[in-house]
Amino acid sequence: MSPREEQDTVHPHQPAYSDEPTRVRQLVSEFLTDQSGTSLGGDGLEVRLTAGADARDDCAVYDLSSPMSLVVGSDYVRGPKFVLYELGLLSGFDIGYYLAVANISDIAAMGATPIGLLSVVRYPHEVDDAEFREVMAGIHQGCTDCGTLNVGGDIGNAERIILSATAFGVCKPGSALMRSGARPGDLLCVTGPCGLLGAAVAYFPRRDTFAKALPEEVERRLLDGWKRPRARVAEGRVLGTKSYATACQDTSDGLKATVEQIMQASGVGFRVYEDDVPVDPAVAMVADLMGAEPLALAMSASSDFQLAFTIDAGDLEKCRAEFDLAGLDFFVVGEATNTGRAESVNGLGAVRPLPGVAWKHQKSDISLLVTDPVED
Amino acid sequence: MSPREEQDTVHPHQPAYSDEPTRVRQLVSEFLTDQSGTSLGGDGLEVRLTAGADARDDCAVYDLSSPMSLVVGSDYVRGPKFVLYELGLLSGFDIGYYLAVANISDIAAMGATPIGLLSVVRYPHEVDDAEFREVMAGIHQGCTDCGTLNVGGDIGNAERIILSATAFGVCKPGSALMRSGARPGDLLCVTGPCGLLGAAVAYFPRRDTFAKALPEEVERRLLDGWKRPRARVAEGRVLGTKSYATACQDTSDGLKATVEQIMQASGVGFRVYEDDVPVDPAVAMVADLMGAEPLALAMSASSDFQLAFTIDAGDLEKCRAEFDLAGLDFFVVGEATNTGRAESVNGLGAVRPLPGVAWKHQKSDISLLVTDPVED
Repeated sequence: MSPREEQDTVHPHQPAYSDEPTRVRQLVSEFLTDQSGTSLGGDGLEVRLTAGADARDDCAVYDLSSPMSLVVGSDYVRGPKFVLYELGLLSGFDIGYYLAVANISDIAAMGATPIGLLSVVRYPHEVDDAEFREVMAGIHQGCTDCGTLNVGGDIGNAERIILSATAFGVCKPGSALMRSGARPGDLLCVTGPCGLLGAAVAYFPRRDTFAKALPEEVERRLLDGWKRPRARVAEGRVLGTKSYATACQDTSDGLKATVEQIMQASGVGFRVYEDDVPVDPAVAMVADLMGAEPLALAMSASSDFQLAFTIDAGDLEKCRAEFDLAGLDFFVVGEATNTGRAESVNGLGAVRPLPGVAWKHQKSDISLLVTDPVED
Repeated sequence: MSPREEQDTVHPHQPAYSDEPTRVRQLVSEFLTDQSGTSLGGDGLEVRLTAGADARDDCAVYDLSSPMSLVVGSDYVRGPKFVLYELGLLSGFDIGYYLAVANISDIAAMGATPIGLLSVVRYPHEVDDAEFREVMAGIHQGCTDCGTLNVGGDIGNAERIILSATAFGVCKPGSALMRSGARPGDLLCVTGPCGLLGAAVAYFPRRDTFAKALPEEVERRLLDGWKRPRARVAEGRVLGTKSYATACQDTSDGLKATVEQIMQASGVGFRVYEDDVPVDPAVAMVADLMGAEPLALAMSASSDFQLAFTIDAGDLEKCRAEFDLAGLDFFVVGEATNTGRAESVNGLGAVRPLPGVAWKHQKSDISLLVTDPVED
C-alpha cells in the first residue's frame, strides 16, 4: 500500500480526519455535484453558473447576459466563541446552516437574489470527518433553502474551527436597497419580531442560575432561531424589485443598532412606537426571568435576520397587498424624523432614547439590561 | 466623558485595541475612501462600483452594463501558522499584502480582470491598533498594485488572527480560462521560476542548523517572494482575452501539484523538460544547503503565484510576441501527452515521475526532499 493509499483509507472504527485533499473531496463532493449549467437570477436577469464547485477550478464562473447590479458581502461567524455550539446545543449542521443564512441575509437586505456562496471552513484535528461533513451539509442545506448554491471556497486545517463566507447576488440595474435613502416622514418597518437569538444567548449559558427553566417548547423556540434562521430573500425582492423601500438593512446586529445605523446613513432621526414593536413571547419570557424589560431585550444585540426598512407612507397599502399576496408579513414600528435622534414613545406619549443594548463587538453586554444582574 | 467617548480615545503611550466599531472605522477609513463611482473592468467591459466600502452598507454594489463572465474565489491565509510571520520576518503589512495577492492570483488564473476584494480580518486583543492598521494597509496596497479595490468585508475580534478574503473579477463572456482544456501536444508553460516561497519556508525556520547562513541579498530575495508577491494579472489577461491558453492555473500549491491538477482536470498526461524549468538561484542555494535537488525544491509545495498554462504549439509565436510587447515573459517547460502520467525527462532522455513534494495540506513535508534530513 502506497503512503497515498494509506492516507485515503478510512478505518471504520476510528474517527477519520479530513485534512487531506483527496479525502476531503470525497467527503464533500455529494454537496457540490451538478452545479455547472444552472440558471440563476430570476426577475428577467440572465445568470448562468458556467463552472460551479463541481468544475473544481481556481474560481467559480458565471455568465451574465444582461445588464444588472451585482452585490457582494462577507461575514465571518464566530467559531470557538459560538457559545451555544460550545454548550452542545447546536450541531455542526446547525452552525453550517447559520453561516450560509447569515451571509445570504446581507444579499436579501440589498433586495437582491442570491446567486451563490463561497464558504471558508477550516478546522482542527479534533474535528473528525463526520462532524466536518455535518458542517458542509448544513451550509449546503442553508444555501438550498435560500434558493442558491455553495459554489466553492476554501477547506482545510487550522488551530481552531473557522467559519467564514461570501455571498453574492444580483438585482435589476440600480435597484439595490441602500441604508441611506430614508427621508423624514417615511414609515419604519420590520419583517418580524427581533431579539430571539440574543435572548437564547442570554438564557442558555446561565440557565442553571435561574429559579426555574423555561418550558421545553419555549427553549426549543429559542434554539430554533439559531438552528434554522431564515434569510428574508422573498421580502427583500418585493421591496427591491418594486422600489418600495427607501432604505433597508438586516437586523443582524439587533433592532436598536440597525435603526441607529439607518439613521446615521440616511441623516434622519427615528421615533419608534413602543406598543407596535412585535415581541416574541419567548423573548418576553427570558426578559422576565432576567428581570429585564421585554422591549429592551427584543431590541438589543441579537443576530436575527429580519429586514428593517423604511417606506413612503403613500406606498404602504400597495406594498402590504403585495406582501399578503406572497404570504409574507411586516410590521410598521415607527417613523423617520428630522431630529437626528433615535428615540421611542410609549402609549402615554412618554419619549425616551431607544431601549436596549446595541451590538458593539465584544463591548456589548446583554447583562446591562438586567436590573438585578446574574453573574456568569 | 461618556463611556462611548472614552472608548474612542486613543491614549498615545498605550497600545490601543480595535474591537470597537467606531474606532475601527476611524482606523481603516483612510483605506476605504472615494471608491463609489469608480469604473473598473477594462477590455470593453462596463463595470462601475456604485457603492464601495465608503458607502458602509450591507454589501458592495457594482453596476454591470454589458454581458460578461464573472469569476469569484475565496482563500483563507494561515494566521498563526504563518511561520515567517511568527519568526518576525514578515510584518502585519506583509501578511495583509500577501492575503490580497493570494486571492487576486486566482482571478488572474482565470484570465480575468479583478474588480474587487472582500477581506476578513479578525484578531485577538494582543494585536494593537498599529499592527491591525498595518494589516489593513497591506491589503490596501496589494489591491492597489493589482489595480483593484478592497470594497469591504468583515473586521472584528477573535481568539487568533484570522485572514481570509474573496476576490472577484470579470472577463469577456465565455473567455474564462479553465484547468480542463489542455490537449495532448499542447505546450506547457510557466510565467516564471517557482519554489521561492517554499524555499524560504524550508530555509528560515532551520537557518541556525545550517553550516552557514546564505548571503544577505539571497535571504532578502527569499523573503521578497513573501513580502511582495505578484499576481500575474497582466499575463492572465493576455492569455484569456486572446484565448491563447487552453488551460491555466496559478502555482499557489507549487508547480508539481499544479501540473498534476491540470493533468487530472484535462484528462491528459504531461512530460516536463527538466533542463527548461527555470530555477531561481536562491532556490538552488537553499537546495544545496538542504542536500536536496534544486529542480525538486523548485517544483515542490510553495505558495508562488506564477501562472502555469498550456497553449497550442501553433499559437506560441503570436503569444510570445504579445507578451514581449507588454514586457511580460513565460517559459516553455514541457508538453501535454496522452499517457495520463506526469513525468519529467532530462537532457539524456531519462524519464522519471515528476520530482518534488506536492502540496497536500499538512501532510506535505518539504523535508522529504532532503537526502540527509535536518530535524526540526
